[in-house]
Amino acid sequence: MTEIAAPYLLFLGDASDDLAAKTAFGIAHWRPLRCLGQLQMPGCKTDIGLPDVSIAEGATRGARTLVIGVVNAGGTISEHWVPTLCAAIEAGLDLASGLHTRLSSIPAIRTAAERHGRKLFDVRHTDQLFSTGSGERRPGKRLLTVGTDCAAGKKYTALAIEAELRARMRPATFRATGQTGILISGGGIAIDAVVSDFVAGAAEWLSPANDPLHWDIIEGQGSLFHPSYAGVTLGLLHGSQPDAFVVCHEPNRRTMRGVSHPLPEIRDVIDLTMRLGRLTNPQIRCVGLSVNTSALSEGAARDLLARLGREYELPVIDPVRSGARAIADVLT
Amino acid sequence: MTEIAAPYLLFLGDASDDLAAKTAFGIAHWRPLRCLGQLQMPGCKTDIGLPDVSIAEGATRGARTLVIGVVNAGGTISEHWVPTLCAAIEAGLDLASGLHTRLSSIPAIRTAAERHGRKLFDVRHTDQLFSTGSGERRPGKRLLTVGTDCAAGKKYTALAIEAELRARMRPATFRATGQTGILISGGGIAIDAVVSDFVAGAAEWLSPANDPLHWDIIEGQGSLFHPSYAGVTLGLLHGSQPDAFVVCHEPNRRTMRGVSHPLPEIRDVIDLTMRLGRLTNPQIRCVGLSVNTSALSEGAARDLLARLGREYELPVIDPVRSGARAIADVLT
Repeated sequence: MTEIAAPYLLFLGDASDDLAAKTAFGIAHWRPLRCLGQLQMPGCKTDIGLPDVSIAEGATRGARTLVIGVVNAGGTISEHWVPTLCAAIEAGLDLASGLHTRLSSIPAIRTAAERHGRKLFDVRHTDQLFSTGSGERRPGKRLLTVGTDCAAGKKYTALAIEAELRARMRPATFRATGQTGILISGGGIAIDAVVSDFVAGAAEWLSPANDPLHWDIIEGQGSLFHPSYAGVTLGLLHGSQPDAFVVCHEPNRRTMRGVSHPLPEIRDVIDLTMRLGRLTNPQIRCVGLSVNTSALSEGAARDLLARLGREYELPVIDPVRSGARAIADVLT
Repeated sequence: MTEIAAPYLLFLGDASDDLAAKTAFGIAHWRPLRCLGQLQMPGCKTDIGLPDVSIAEGATRGARTLVIGVVNAGGTISEHWVPTLCAAIEAGLDLASGLHTRLSSIPAIRTAAERHGRKLFDVRHTDQLFSTGSGERRPGKRLLTVGTDCAAGKKYTALAIEAELRARMRPATFRATGQTGILISGGGIAIDAVVSDFVAGAAEWLSPANDPLHWDIIEGQGSLFHPSYAGVTLGLLHGSQPDAFVVCHEPNRRTMRGVSHPLPEIRDVIDLTMRLGRLTNPQIRCVGLSVNTSALSEGAARDLLARLGREYELPVIDPVRSGARAIADVLT
């Protein structure tokens, strides 16, 4: 997909709470320099801490894209957002959305975009054509975040590792595979929206040949142990041909998201990722664990990370509490 | 997808040789009762042994669908086929094709179908919406054919097992996952055309809950060891939740189709299929091997099957030479 142009104006709509504006928070947290300001509508109950910027003001100050950083209860585009979205287009901004509803499916938005020659980015969908995977090795280093489940911190972990490598002046690029990651970084592929035949090929396209010391930090999806999505996870693993992987884990979960299957052991995820990943990269290795300890006290979190570190003899991080230093140490 | 209505009139076009009409041969071989006759154009260099039936005659005798059983050099629909295809529509027949080009993308065909209210089946594509996989067990028995590679006899083996079970009056249904299988059986899903998020769900839909003694014999795709397609294979495995699987193998191949990776050992395919398949069916087991011995003499073929049988302690068949009796024995 084409790069989504920055700077962004982050649209918060009439968000009912902070959680509804999770995408906007993520963008502002990870890419503050891409963000010019926030745009609220009457009734908005969240504030992400950026300056309030109107559409007219944003356009004057060079905003390139209005990014929908909010989700309503139905996961759709609310009808009463449409006039504001159209006003942004008329002021010269592109629109970007990670929602299921396509922007282009709303006649007023499509017409405005056509009339003003603006782009509409529906990052949850892809019309891009890919080749099937070749399985051939390519230069550059790659790290993939994998998980014991969906929604176990794979995007956050990848972004934290990229941030730590960049802070050390090491060449590193976050590669997004889901809608929020794409909006954060301005590019990527919603890999679960790709036709299955082309998933490995899309992953190869996403993390192309690069300098031998450059790290692509690839956002993982699903889990090899999730009965709904393991095929997506495997295609992404084979196409990414990672040199390194990090297992992300949510310790309080008992069953996998949306199904009744129990969570796998971290050890089983390491073993299976190694076994399957060797097909396209015989040097694949696990370089650490990333654990979401948000439900634990500071002391309990420290104990858990220490215990897992002894058990697995690997660096163990909670990227929210302490960043990704221990894993970056292994990569640099 | 909707069932493709039989009886078929098989369109051979101007096939350059038997291989170009492989699909027509497959349909006539496996579903002779679905076939009313064949339709050649001038220059056709193949004959599948069915009566020659004109469009007018076919319509009179009750033909419901003209099935394109031929592929031209480009894998497209030849321009000079179009008048004949339109004539079939005008005579009241539906059209079915397994080619990449969509029938509906050809204006004359689309217009004729709309005017006469006929259906166009592009079985390589799917616009059907599926749920994500649930991973829940469902009644009925299922067998999946898997392989050491793509194009290793998975469709043929599944059809041979279905035929043998039916000959024994056992309830069994072939479930097609590729275009030729769909045209043969009149229904199914081109699983590699499904958006990756929904592959396991589509496989669940394809082999739904059934009588406890009924066997779904599911056509496998790709290979867990193929770097381009393993994700498709895994989603199909998880959604199919097979009780039994058969490993299909082409003994003369050294590298996997389209890539430079070596063929895996049969033992590795058994082990990995067991390990991954247990996620949705802990009772999964390998019930046999199916080997394509067409390049070997009768004696060498017999020796190979016997040697593999001793090595793996499993029934080993070549379904072309000898049918699927030895595997059906294990299932009944």
